[in-house]
Amino acid sequence: MRPSSSPSEQRAVARGLFDDVLAHGPVWEATSDAAWLQAMLDAEAALTWALADVGLAPVPHAETIAAACHAEAFDVAALGRDATAGGNPVIPLVRALTRQVAPDAVASVHRGATSQDILDTAAMLVARNSLDSIIADLAAATTLLVDLARTHRAAPMAGRTLLQHAVPTTFGLVAVGWAAGIDAASRQLTSVRDDRLAAQLGGAAGTLDAFGGHGIDVAERFATRLGLQPATPWHTERTRVAELAGALGGAAGAIGKVATDIVLLAQTEVAEVREAGEGRGASSAMPHKGNPVAAISARASVLPAPALVATLLSAMHHEHQRAAGAWHAEWRPFTDLLRAVGSGAAWQRESLEALDVDPARMRHNLNLTEGLVFSERVAGALAPSLGGRQAQDVVAAACRSAVAQHRPLAEVLATDPAVAPVLDSQRLAELLDPDAAVASAAELVDRVLASVARG
Amino acid sequence: MRPSSSPSEQRAVARGLFDDVLAHGPVWEATSDAAWLQAMLDAEAALTWALADVGLAPVPHAETIAAACHAEAFDVAALGRDATAGGNPVIPLVRALTRQVAPDAVASVHRGATSQDILDTAAMLVARNSLDSIIADLAAATTLLVDLARTHRAAPMAGRTLLQHAVPTTFGLVAVGWAAGIDAASRQLTSVRDDRLAAQLGGAAGTLDAFGGHGIDVAERFATRLGLQPATPWHTERTRVAELAGALGGAAGAIGKVATDIVLLAQTEVAEVREAGEGRGASSAMPHKGNPVAAISARASVLPAPALVATLLSAMHHEHQRAAGAWHAEWRPFTDLLRAVGSGAAWQRESLEALDVDPARMRHNLNLTEGLVFSERVAGALAPSLGGRQAQDVVAAACRSAVAQHRPLAEVLATDPAVAPVLDSQRLAELLDPDAAVASAAELVDRVLASVARG
Amino acid sequence: MRPSSSPSEQRAVARGLFDDVLAHGPVWEATSDAAWLQAMLDAEAALTWALADVGLAPVPHAETIAAACHAEAFDVAALGRDATAGGNPVIPLVRALTRQVAPDAVASVHRGATSQDILDTAAMLVARNSLDSIIADLAAATTLLVDLARTHRAAPMAGRTLLQHAVPTTFGLVAVGWAAGIDAASRQLTSVRDDRLAAQLGGAAGTLDAFGGHGIDVAERFATRLGLQPATPWHTERTRVAELAGALGGAAGAIGKVATDIVLLAQTEVAEVREAGEGRGASSAMPHKGNPVAAISARASVLPAPALVATLLSAMHHEHQRAAGAWHAEWRPFTDLLRAVGSGAAWQRESLEALDVDPARMRHNLNLTEGLVFSERVAGALAPSLGGRQAQDVVAAACRSAVAQHRPLAEVLATDPAVAPVLDSQRLAELLDPDAAVASAAELVDRVLASVARG
Amino acid sequence: MRPSSSPSEQRAVARGLFDDVLAHGPVWEATSDAAWLQAMLDAEAALTWALADVGLAPVPHAETIAAACHAEAFDVAALGRDATAGGNPVIPLVRALTRQVAPDAVASVHRGATSQDILDTAAMLVARNSLDSIIADLAAATTLLVDLARTHRAAPMAGRTLLQHAVPTTFGLVAVGWAAGIDAASRQLTSVRDDRLAAQLGGAAGTLDAFGGHGIDVAERFATRLGLQPATPWHTERTRVAELAGALGGAAGAIGKVATDIVLLAQTEVAEVREAGEGRGASSAMPHKGNPVAAISARASVLPAPALVATLLSAMHHEHQRAAGAWHAEWRPFTDLLRAVGSGAAWQRESLEALDVDPARMRHNLNLTEGLVFSERVAGALAPSLGGRQAQDVVAAACRSAVAQHRPLAEVLATDPAVAPVLDSQRLAELLDPDAAVASAAELVDRVLASVARG
Repeated sequence: MRPSSSPSEQRAVARGLFDDVLAHGPVWEATSDAAWLQAMLDAEAALTWALADVGLAPVPHAETIAAACHAEAFDVAALGRDATAGGNPVIPLVRALTRQVAPDAVASVHRGATSQDILDTAAMLVARNSLDSIIADLAAATTLLVDLARTHRAAPMAGRTLLQHAVPTTFGLVAVGWAAGIDAASRQLTSVRDDRLAAQLGGAAGTLDAFGGHGIDVAERFATRLGLQPATPWHTERTRVAELAGALGGAAGAIGKVATDIVLLAQTEVAEVREAGEGRGASSAMPHKGNPVAAISARASVLPAPALVATLLSAMHHEHQRAAGAWHAEWRPFTDLLRAVGSGAAWQRESLEALDVDPARMRHNLNLTEGLVFSERVAGALAPSLGGRQAQDVVAAACRSAVAQHRPLAEVLATDPAVAPVLDSQRLAELLDPDAAVASAAELVDRVLASVARG
Repeated sequence: MRPSSSPSEQRAVARGLFDDVLAHGPVWEATSDAAWLQAMLDAEAALTWALADVGLAPVPHAETIAAACHAEAFDVAALGRDATAGGNPVIPLVRALTRQVAPDAVASVHRGATSQDILDTAAMLVARNSLDSIIADLAAATTLLVDLARTHRAAPMAGRTLLQHAVPTTFGLVAVGWAAGIDAASRQLTSVRDDRLAAQLGGAAGTLDAFGGHGIDVAERFATRLGLQPATPWHTERTRVAELAGALGGAAGAIGKVATDIVLLAQTEVAEVREAGEGRGASSAMPHKGNPVAAISARASVLPAPALVATLLSAMHHEHQRAAGAWHAEWRPFTDLLRAVGSGAAWQRESLEALDVDPARMRHNLNLTEGLVFSERVAGALAPSLGGRQAQDVVAAACRSAVAQHRPLAEVLATDPAVAPVLDSQRLAELLDPDAAVASAAELVDRVLASVARG
Repeated sequence: MRPSSSPSEQRAVARGLFDDVLAHGPVWEATSDAAWLQAMLDAEAALTWALADVGLAPVPHAETIAAACHAEAFDVAALGRDATAGGNPVIPLVRALTRQVAPDAVASVHRGATSQDILDTAAMLVARNSLDSIIADLAAATTLLVDLARTHRAAPMAGRTLLQHAVPTTFGLVAVGWAAGIDAASRQLTSVRDDRLAAQLGGAAGTLDAFGGHGIDVAERFATRLGLQPATPWHTERTRVAELAGALGGAAGAIGKVATDIVLLAQTEVAEVREAGEGRGASSAMPHKGNPVAAISARASVLPAPALVATLLSAMHHEHQRAAGAWHAEWRPFTDLLRAVGSGAAWQRESLEALDVDPARMRHNLNLTEGLVFSERVAGALAPSLGGRQAQDVVAAACRSAVAQHRPLAEVLATDPAVAPVLDSQRLAELLDPDAAVASAAELVDRVLASVARG
Repeated sequence: MRPSSSPSEQRAVARGLFDDVLAHGPVWEATSDAAWLQAMLDAEAALTWALADVGLAPVPHAETIAAACHAEAFDVAALGRDATAGGNPVIPLVRALTRQVAPDAVASVHRGATSQDILDTAAMLVARNSLDSIIADLAAATTLLVDLARTHRAAPMAGRTLLQHAVPTTFGLVAVGWAAGIDAASRQLTSVRDDRLAAQLGGAAGTLDAFGGHGIDVAERFATRLGLQPATPWHTERTRVAELAGALGGAAGAIGKVATDIVLLAQTEVAEVREAGEGRGASSAMPHKGNPVAAISARASVLPAPALVATLLSAMHHEHQRAAGAWHAEWRPFTDLLRAVGSGAAWQRESLEALDVDPARMRHNLNLTEGLVFSERVAGALAPSLGGRQAQDVVAAACRSAVAQHRPLAEVLATDPAVAPVLDSQRLAELLDPDAAVASAAELVDRVLASVARG
């Protein structure tokens, strides 16, 4: 059972100027200062209960202390200010908590713990709550993409490589490919959330010395009370932070891939998708513009993620039993990385909710090269008779003629003396038929859909 | 069964000026140009066999082509040079392979594949072979650390926070903490290697169109032949690369943590460990120096890893059905990241093999503050009688007196009127006894050892 | 003359939980949301004045609009919230400003400008104000270091390479080396501030079309009014941002170098420096600790800087005439990078203000190897007579004897039959005299001091 | 005068599989192992000459040693292999050089220097030679862009914001904007090359002790002989490396901006530019494709640059008088960053040399929205009569009608009762005339051209 660390009941803290764009959606609240503060207090409360569980503190102490552990009763700015003397906000928090607790229970406040125990555990709680919302947004995006994939399973569009038309694909295959990335990222995040977010409790040097012989027992009960994995002290063993960071970095990339494609498909000249919706993306000065604001904001949100991952990885070299800087350096990028991915996920969900797909335009664009996108298919069909090299040469020559003469490839091929004996007009028509050309793509959609569903 | 892609039989390519330091150990060979080339040829051979398996190519074609797929027969520099026309080395490789194959089998060379299929699959093979050696080196390091932890399970040393003496710990706990990090990193790498390294086959736009209705079947057989996971086309869905990168980044951090601690413990003033061994670390001009060269080189090797991870994550936004730059941009950091971690792992193993631990010096250093490292223990023992706040104040005053008068803390406490009534001389001696002080640390060693063993 | 964009008169916005540690000193206020908002309003006001200057707006319009451009009159959170529709906060700001202006002046609000003009220009103002405080803190640090270097010009200490004692140096040379780095970084920041922070004005696509033939004139007056460099539109040409980022990244590294050395010199076993001062760095639980909190916090502050630089550099690929994400992605790391370096600079200044240097301890530590740190000097003195190779061999053997027999090197050398004929006891004493050994270091201090002073 | 450190006469070392794509152009050779080796030897030779200059070595020693300092005489692989014992390749290089020198001159080999002196100085020589070629390629690109800007000074095209058509601009303004970025980056690189690449000479701990009282004199002559800036020892003060890295990072971004735009403009649907030329970009399987391979490869080359910059910045925290890892960690990213930017610059030059611009297509695309891109102009012309708000509302309504009825905006406006009284048909035609609309853009081209020329 998870403790009540929801920051939603806490006093409102105003979002910043850029937060609604770059820390969009529920992740802002899950990572706000109020959320961090409540998570630290949840850790202090759980510690006291764990002490009580093993008989190292009287139960009334735990009740008294836990009752005082509500973020509303503390002044974030004052705690921040007083953090400078010792270099972290737990020291003033413990002082403030002590002041709020009846004198006889003071001995059980923060007993046996060190600042890093509380802050690291709080970070795990903040991560868990953030991941809950991120995973929900990614799941919603996946569902939307799966629906798009089913709807446009066999809708032909230009497959583009190096931003040039290559061969036909379907929008269904594109959409389910996007879904596969989002889904894989979501699975990795879920696995980190469920298996690697662990409570940290060790005391000054991670030896559990202050709990007498009960240290391991206290640590396990501490974790259980918080709904986190139990663990031996990991204060300077940061692979848990690294795995979380890596998973978030992968999610950022998966989101960015989808958003980039949407921005490209929405270009004025391409116009195969657009974000519909009242108000959004409109430009008062230029009323014709339909800026895909949600996809653009998703890109903007996740772009800083890779470097934030790098910062957290760079900070893993914690010296001895507590790092002289690398630990403190984690706090901001930890928050910012959750926000970057959470914001990207929230925007992506909105982008997909608003996505208007234009299959007719896709079909129109596919014909822009007047058949050249089918050249590989034709060459493949000629190969058994002419040999692969010869088949390619014949088709390449036909393509050059088509371009030079501004004629459709079908016309050129129909009169090509090397082609006619091999491919009759019906077979040629089929080879140049968009719908026939995407049969394998449509089949593949089903396969990928199954794998996304299977997980 | 894995194909013979070992590059060890291939012609020697000389290592570079910095490679023995920064691409140390077996990973250099596993990521060399020869290894990449052989991996691409393995992919071409496997494709042909997969075609034969489903009846899309005659078996003799597969035999002929597979027989030609040996890296020794190709000129790396020429392939590299010819890569500029199309922007990747697969195009010239296919041409060169075609030239080496009897004319009648030419039609089955690279049939239905695109350059990215071959290069992505080769990258997965290079990663698998590299991970094999990295995981082996990490396992060896873990074993060495587990042995150190057992040997020094209860050997007291200063626990240091913020690079200052804090409270006692044991070298056993330090060593097993290092092992836990290395072990966790190794597990993540193993999981990526076994579950996420997948073959890539999709054709020009990832639709498997050129294989008729057999695409999915061909792709599965292709993967099986290479000992990789089968997968639907993931050419622009890069979460696999991201997971590999993230796991490598975590391993780099775990290695760096250990190496940093060793460098710090080996300082002239600390001298608790040193890398023994003939010749290594000696300075001809300064014969007294005992530079921990292996640990230093491990740090140097892994330091670039976080940014390489960031590059691979940044490159995930592949446009449409093939990226216009982001794909090509992966090749170098992919290789360099494997090398960074492989080099760090190899150096770390050597560092630990050579590690000379000096428990007497640890005990000596623990006494440098003449008892102050036990102050927290004394305050804890006084707390039940004096109350926590009062207990801390008494001990803090005693510590200040000890420092001011250059006297051991034991002496000061023994004559403190607030202390004497509570703690008799025997209890005081026990509180200030290094061996008693690390009892909980020693117990914790067993717990962590069990969790490392359990996995 | 610079406009009044000082945010200090604005309503207080509370700092966050980690801000006093990680956004320490004046830079927080210079980069706060209130500062950003005021900078945007300064840009709007300057635009109106520039229009008036060239006759495109009546002077009373400019007066009316400028009078409304005070951040206190606007609601940051509401602007942030309304930014989501268009993806940036300038759109709602212009609407809000329009509402605050008399109807007849509305036509001159934001006339001819686009959102990016205002936000980019505001970023330059925020950067300028931040750089002012950063440069001041770096100058103060340099002055403190120059004083330390003068005081300890010839104070011998161990020169340490690879964290091992190597040969003697002086603390003066160490301090002036630190000063040289801080000074170089400060110069580069000054050069960027004075030469590269430019106003941006271009209109929707950077063509200045909406100003008729007056565009270039308006842009120049706009810049002059803001005290920024005039420039042709640079909205998608981000080398200015890159130069600023690079200079900040260099400053972060220069700060980190000094802080790292201070943390290392303050280690319990080394104890050559400490941060003195009431309260700071004390640990209630461990009263003997003297944590160098300012140096630690400086390290923590600057550690994320390199990755923030990377994010800004990665975001330079602005598409066409406005980027679809890369522009928005700059806002947060731009702020965070200024904060990282500003915080590091403020902490470093405090660290140096509190720095207590212990030359006696330095001299003590220099003797820890009982003379081995002079071995290179002795070998150099023997070389003319014995040849370089032979000289090194003789000294190396003496060093090994000294270590094996736990005798001072001076003793061993005095009785070495190869040494005695060449170096008499007086010459030997001089070679092993710490003060004689650092004569060249002391001279070098003067040279570096001169170059720091010359700038 | 610069020494002959050109690696071009040296024995050929084969480029690798990816080098012709990702280390394209002259930078590969300037950063090859042979170039590094020759640069180290140049440093050793210059040191000997500097010693001779001040009388610390006989001139014949200098002659003998300098004569031996040719890279061809050394075995890179063997030096690399032997680097593992001490952690850097200078130690074995000095041994090898000693073996090649007549016994009587041996005493003057490497005298007074430390490994880092030689390697840091070599890095500066490698950087200088690389910058020479990078700056030349950037200059060539600038010239090509200036020519394009002159040619297409007034050629209308769609200005695109957020990848949507916004308002008209000219290709001349686009091209000169590209030039401005490349030019700014080139200036910064030139400034670093000329002012900040300095020789490093300090001896074991940077005290110049081994040169008696001549240290500063030797260091200056050492620098002069190498054509580098003289400097007091900067071995652990890495702002020079940081400035170089920052400048290279900025150049990478400037290159990437241009390449990204070219790739976007070359899209099948846009087709406003293409890279012409025989063979390049052709796809045998898809003969219709015209992949802009040079621009794509430029993007691929520079994409890793930001993270390489971050690695070099992260490595600035060199401990004490020589870093235990951070120094060694610089070697590879230092080389790779020069290669990334050099490769990008070489590809960009080739891309621009091949660039085929299609002004007719630009004009065609500008008309895709049938006049909507002129809406801002029309609203501006209506504003004096109708007021700004009203003018925008009228135009927005007209735009919506035009879109809904598939009619050109000109038609809709001509019959709009609110417009007709204000704008007669001649004025309307002018407002919707592409050539009139870009008058200010064309003027701006001249201004930017002047600033690029002025420098």
